[in-house]
Amino acid sequence: MNAPDISRQLERGDATHLFDRDFGAHTEAVERTARGLEATAAERDRAGGTAWAERQLLRDSGLLTLAVPAEFGGAGLPWPQIYAIIRRFAEADSSLAHLFGFQHLQVASVRLFANPAQQARLLGDTVTKGWFWGNATNGLDTRIRLTPAGDHFLLDGVKSFCSGATGSDMLNVTAPRGDDPADRVFISLPTDRAGITVHDDWDNLGQRQTDSGTVTFEKVRVEADEILGPPGTRGTPRATLRTLVSQLILTEIYLGNTQGALRAAWHYVQHEARPWFASGVSRAADDPYGQVRFAELWIAYRGALALAQQAEAALQRAWERGDALDARERGEVALLIWQAKIAAGRAALDVTSRIFELMGARATAARYGHDRYWRNVRVHTLHDNLDYKLQDIGRWVLDDRVPEPSIYS
Amino acid sequence: MNAPDISRQLERGDATHLFDRDFGAHTEAVERTARGLEATAAERDRAGGTAWAERQLLRDSGLLTLAVPAEFGGAGLPWPQIYAIIRRFAEADSSLAHLFGFQHLQVASVRLFANPAQQARLLGDTVTKGWFWGNATNGLDTRIRLTPAGDHFLLDGVKSFCSGATGSDMLNVTAPRGDDPADRVFISLPTDRAGITVHDDWDNLGQRQTDSGTVTFEKVRVEADEILGPPGTRGTPRATLRTLVSQLILTEIYLGNTQGALRAAWHYVQHEARPWFASGVSRAADDPYGQVRFAELWIAYRGALALAQQAEAALQRAWERGDALDARERGEVALLIWQAKIAAGRAALDVTSRIFELMGARATAARYGHDRYWRNVRVHTLHDNLDYKLQDIGRWVLDDRVPEPSIYS
Amino acid sequence: MNAPDISRQLERGDATHLFDRDFGAHTEAVERTARGLEATAAERDRAGGTAWAERQLLRDSGLLTLAVPAEFGGAGLPWPQIYAIIRRFAEADSSLAHLFGFQHLQVASVRLFANPAQQARLLGDTVTKGWFWGNATNGLDTRIRLTPAGDHFLLDGVKSFCSGATGSDMLNVTAPRGDDPADRVFISLPTDRAGITVHDDWDNLGQRQTDSGTVTFEKVRVEADEILGPPGTRGTPRATLRTLVSQLILTEIYLGNTQGALRAAWHYVQHEARPWFASGVSRAADDPYGQVRFAELWIAYRGALALAQQAEAALQRAWERGDALDARERGEVALLIWQAKIAAGRAALDVTSRIFELMGARATAARYGHDRYWRNVRVHTLHDNLDYKLQDIGRWVLDDRVPEPSIYS
Amino acid sequence: MNAPDISRQLERGDATHLFDRDFGAHTEAVERTARGLEATAAERDRAGGTAWAERQLLRDSGLLTLAVPAEFGGAGLPWPQIYAIIRRFAEADSSLAHLFGFQHLQVASVRLFANPAQQARLLGDTVTKGWFWGNATNGLDTRIRLTPAGDHFLLDGVKSFCSGATGSDMLNVTAPRGDDPADRVFISLPTDRAGITVHDDWDNLGQRQTDSGTVTFEKVRVEADEILGPPGTRGTPRATLRTLVSQLILTEIYLGNTQGALRAAWHYVQHEARPWFASGVSRAADDPYGQVRFAELWIAYRGALALAQQAEAALQRAWERGDALDARERGEVALLIWQAKIAAGRAALDVTSRIFELMGARATAARYGHDRYWRNVRVHTLHDNLDYKLQDIGRWVLDDRVPEPSIYS
Repeated sequence: MNAPDISRQLERGDATHLFDRDFGAHTEAVERTARGLEATAAERDRAGGTAWAERQLLRDSGLLTLAVPAEFGGAGLPWPQIYAIIRRFAEADSSLAHLFGFQHLQVASVRLFANPAQQARLLGDTVTKGWFWGNATNGLDTRIRLTPAGDHFLLDGVKSFCSGATGSDMLNVTAPRGDDPADRVFISLPTDRAGITVHDDWDNLGQRQTDSGTVTFEKVRVEADEILGPPGTRGTPRATLRTLVSQLILTEIYLGNTQGALRAAWHYVQHEARPWFASGVSRAADDPYGQVRFAELWIAYRGALALAQQAEAALQRAWERGDALDARERGEVALLIWQAKIAAGRAALDVTSRIFELMGARATAARYGHDRYWRNVRVHTLHDNLDYKLQDIGRWVLDDRVPEPSIYS
Repeated sequence: MNAPDISRQLERGDATHLFDRDFGAHTEAVERTARGLEATAAERDRAGGTAWAERQLLRDSGLLTLAVPAEFGGAGLPWPQIYAIIRRFAEADSSLAHLFGFQHLQVASVRLFANPAQQARLLGDTVTKGWFWGNATNGLDTRIRLTPAGDHFLLDGVKSFCSGATGSDMLNVTAPRGDDPADRVFISLPTDRAGITVHDDWDNLGQRQTDSGTVTFEKVRVEADEILGPPGTRGTPRATLRTLVSQLILTEIYLGNTQGALRAAWHYVQHEARPWFASGVSRAADDPYGQVRFAELWIAYRGALALAQQAEAALQRAWERGDALDARERGEVALLIWQAKIAAGRAALDVTSRIFELMGARATAARYGHDRYWRNVRVHTLHDNLDYKLQDIGRWVLDDRVPEPSIYS
Repeated sequence: MNAPDISRQLERGDATHLFDRDFGAHTEAVERTARGLEATAAERDRAGGTAWAERQLLRDSGLLTLAVPAEFGGAGLPWPQIYAIIRRFAEADSSLAHLFGFQHLQVASVRLFANPAQQARLLGDTVTKGWFWGNATNGLDTRIRLTPAGDHFLLDGVKSFCSGATGSDMLNVTAPRGDDPADRVFISLPTDRAGITVHDDWDNLGQRQTDSGTVTFEKVRVEADEILGPPGTRGTPRATLRTLVSQLILTEIYLGNTQGALRAAWHYVQHEARPWFASGVSRAADDPYGQVRFAELWIAYRGALALAQQAEAALQRAWERGDALDARERGEVALLIWQAKIAAGRAALDVTSRIFELMGARATAARYGHDRYWRNVRVHTLHDNLDYKLQDIGRWVLDDRVPEPSIYS
Repeated sequence: MNAPDISRQLERGDATHLFDRDFGAHTEAVERTARGLEATAAERDRAGGTAWAERQLLRDSGLLTLAVPAEFGGAGLPWPQIYAIIRRFAEADSSLAHLFGFQHLQVASVRLFANPAQQARLLGDTVTKGWFWGNATNGLDTRIRLTPAGDHFLLDGVKSFCSGATGSDMLNVTAPRGDDPADRVFISLPTDRAGITVHDDWDNLGQRQTDSGTVTFEKVRVEADEILGPPGTRGTPRATLRTLVSQLILTEIYLGNTQGALRAAWHYVQHEARPWFASGVSRAADDPYGQVRFAELWIAYRGALALAQQAEAALQRAWERGDALDARERGEVALLIWQAKIAAGRAALDVTSRIFELMGARATAARYGHDRYWRNVRVHTLHDNLDYKLQDIGRWVLDDRVPEPSIYS
């Protein structure tokens, strides 16, 4: 019954048994877009810079409004389903998946922080005008000032790590409202507002097409109505869900790269690798040690995925609680997310580095771009210091304390 | 909002924030029984032998019929809920949890292999007569023979590793039907049948009260009707689910011991441990390295738990498919279970060994019995050779092959 | 040329290819004693208590004076050679190796702290009277007081973890000289001095025959001359070498247990284990996964051993520097020892737990005592908190700081 | 005595406390060359291609003759000292260190395989003419043929992975002598011999300036005297030492990259990194978790280094045994080298990936080139399949068998 039916697997073509490709009503759009992204991902990784054509693929996909509620014309998809699509895209192209994920993060920010009129306007226009959102919200970069100027405000300063700012229509910007750095406001501005300059200065070893460079603000006029709220960022436990939405996007980028690495290794072993001369087998896929090594990587991936899926379900439940969500419930969801993120980051680093041992020396030729998975994950897993996330978890285990919400938690 | 509210945690008393204690309608019975088991678990671990009083606790709990369908008077609980209870018991007392889990495995064997009349009789009597089942089914021990003798059969030979045979009312025994060792039948016999001798010869370094000794059979009369089937063990993919039910019981024993170890360490750190002199903190629970170490153990545990929960849901779906289940579906559930089992075994070995680093040298006093978690897990994780389970997973990843059902898979 | 010459290995009998058995002039005495210890080690581990006969074996071996300089009648062996013998004994019997190692630690204490007359008397008598030394020097137990009483002193209080006190002739005791707890003095007393009571209250999960119980002191008369010094414990960097001598004894206990575990696994696989039914090989030793697992354990062991050997050579050089040794040199030796100790502890925990995976389920029978290696290592590696040793190393790497000498460093 | 004396460390400037910089009489030449290499290493890594200027630095260093015996005008340095210099160069520039190391491997090949007249000529000219050697000896590439043609031979075919061929003066080439592929001969040819074409087709993700491309041979005339031997490659255990010399060069490349990564991380933490906002410390180097993480990387590095040093000492002893070396002695040295190589490869992969966690997100800017250590190690550790090296070790542990010499062992 289980004789090795290689033909079946070869018919299937591309390791389709490994990953779930069912995205419900969006399956066709997701798969078409993913394939469009991955066709040139390795090449564009080498080039760096802005992926204009692929940004357009995302715009054309119709998937930029997944997180917009149906009342504003969006798909109103639950978070777990959005995350599955981000993961699929990250398998194909980690940089573009990042931009895609952060689109939904900006939508989430509007949903959490904006007042009803702002929501109607901003989310409505996201659908009707096809807005692609970028961000300038790096919480550790405090070189920005918002100054009252009569009936409006002026924004001056600099923000680094502004993923997706290049080529965006709208920009979420954070700035302290007054002297208290913790009292940050979110400001939604058109990217082409006078005084905003998006610099093309991102040149890092991974996530090379995330356009995560610097944005400068020089006497940028901000209308009072462009500052999101009330409730704004500090009203309720619900408002602090933004960080959690964000942390799970990172998590899924790690898992998507892991999938990409596993699939690349699978493909290479099936189609290019030679068995080791001392192995005594005639197909690389029959090497008994290679089989066990693949299994090890698979288990690492699957354990992290299971944690992410549980955390995403918990986030969705918390999201649906709305203003009834209390600090403890929020904190317990956060802890599930920390666990998933740590596990996913570690699995991703490990898998993306160790796939080479399954493929062999010739798989290091630059034309394959097999190292981009590790480079993407290596860059992205540095977003925040995980030792302090571990400490959060430890304090909860020991003393039943939940982490205090912050720009990173 | 998140100031360390130690008092709250102390009120909660016993790390109740860590583990889910909701077993639905059975919560009270489960918790009462679990506490009864754990009160003397460390002491009985040292003594070894048969835990007569605690076996009686299990009989009195009303929980031995959880897997019996409602039509025969049982609770008809889905497998995921039964597994959660096994895990809870394993946290308290790994040996008794093993006996409890194998009770349900014997019930599952009857449900899978017996003909309708046998099911009605055996499952009905399990409820009405309060039967506790043991087993003599070790597939690697082939020293047993079933010989036709007119209208009945005679059973002769030996079986080792017969967990739960001592003190049981009924015994499932496996034996080859004829010359083909793969054609095993299941035989359900009263333990007090003439010629059956249950030996009290289990003295191992862990799982010390599982009564997993030897059973000898000398000219034991077996009625034709006591051989389960049709369908018996070889009819359909469905019949091969027994191994999967069994492998998840093992998995939950590992996870339960992990919980027990974490809780013991939590309790010791809260109530007995002193901070390390060079740490500069006044409570052991405030040691920054200790917090991170606890978090590491927690993540290992939680990753394995998430995989187990996903595998259990898949098993339940397969179970409900009944005879419609096909070989591929069965194989994919098996692979989820292999992953969960490997992850759980590793997490359990790691956590049960490393808790000592959180507690310190004085926690090694024999009176605490803190090493029993590791000893239980160490013994139980040797049930089958995991390298070949890894190979099964690797072959599936590489060639889309599912493992062939066997006594261990 | 390299065809598997199994017969050769079987002739060799007992894995003699694995470990160095050359102890120079002491080889015969070492091997005879080691074999005497290991003959009953598993059995005595179960029994616990004091190993009177085996303590006598050590006395009879002539090896208790290895660290005593030749001028006082000892062997004056360099530390690396003493450590190799401790390791060999720990392979055979971890508890007795501990007592043996601590004998040399007490001799080292006299060599480092005592004035010339004290050295002549105490070391001379160690040789001529065949003294076996114990200790009551646990630095974290501060329940002891030394009070001036005319021309002598009175010692009152309690010390825990007093390895080797039972059955000893002499006892090194530490107590604060006055109000400064850091100003500890070493006192060398006959164990049978009035007022000293050695309690038989050690019952821990490992190192079960180290007699590491409590000693109480009630109005014990201490002559001024029994307080070691000058130089005493605080004179020079050289004086602080005692901690380093001690930390390497622990390290070798870990490595010896690792050797014991590897040898036990080797023996079981060669003589008792059955190949896994799915492996397709006819000897357990031919299992391709088992071979790789053995290699993994071997590499872990060998890496730690190499670090220990380098650290021991460095200690010997520092020892030979005498009073010329400066704080930085001492600190750099300490850091080498921390590294060796951490690596050895981890390798030992890992190897002693994982040997079971090489042997299989039947190797858990209590009669083998295969778990004693893990239990010994688990207890002994808790001697001090390794996170703070790691911090010492990290501070040196980052800021070129050496650890400050203390009772644990 | 141990107050954090940061000033001292800053004076030292460049983490000079971490690594031994004493290369005896060659210290000045080594350090000057290493600094010359590292000045542009990151930049050249991005560019790829041939490092003509740096190859000249190596020629000018006077160090290309270290392995040539004094009788032929070389330094006749023992292998452990040569390896230390290779490691130092690999810390600075992994690609050039590879070329440097392989120079000595070619010299070793001549010493092992050539007859006395060939040795005098080839080694003498290596000194007097300042030859830089390349190789075309990839044993897995069997596309080459050596055909007798009267009093000479003709060489035709292709070799891949020919490190150092570009820009070399001489080339060692391997080819089967006749029909037996195992009967390989070594041929020493001037690189500019008619018919030899060195292709500039190496473009891989790491070791980017090792010029490890393809060499084609078209009717290349080979004089009988250019085929090395007797003794040639198959005479004695001594001849098989070439593989061992080679495997330790790889090992040292791993360790050198590890040193480079640690030093880069040290420098970044000291001079550029900011403490994590939640850490409460004012210097990144004071982060308690960062300190422990640095220590972990350090221990991994040091354990592998210690194994390498022990293996190198054993190789030197075997080398000095000359023709008296027997197969078992050679095999036991090989096993020490396997262990060192596996440990070094793992430590290197781990350290070069994890340094980023110590430095933080901004350290991923492409201008630093911080990922080149991982890329170099990732490529270089794929030289041969380590699972089969592990199997060699396991077979020795279990059955006292030494590995059979081959092109990879």
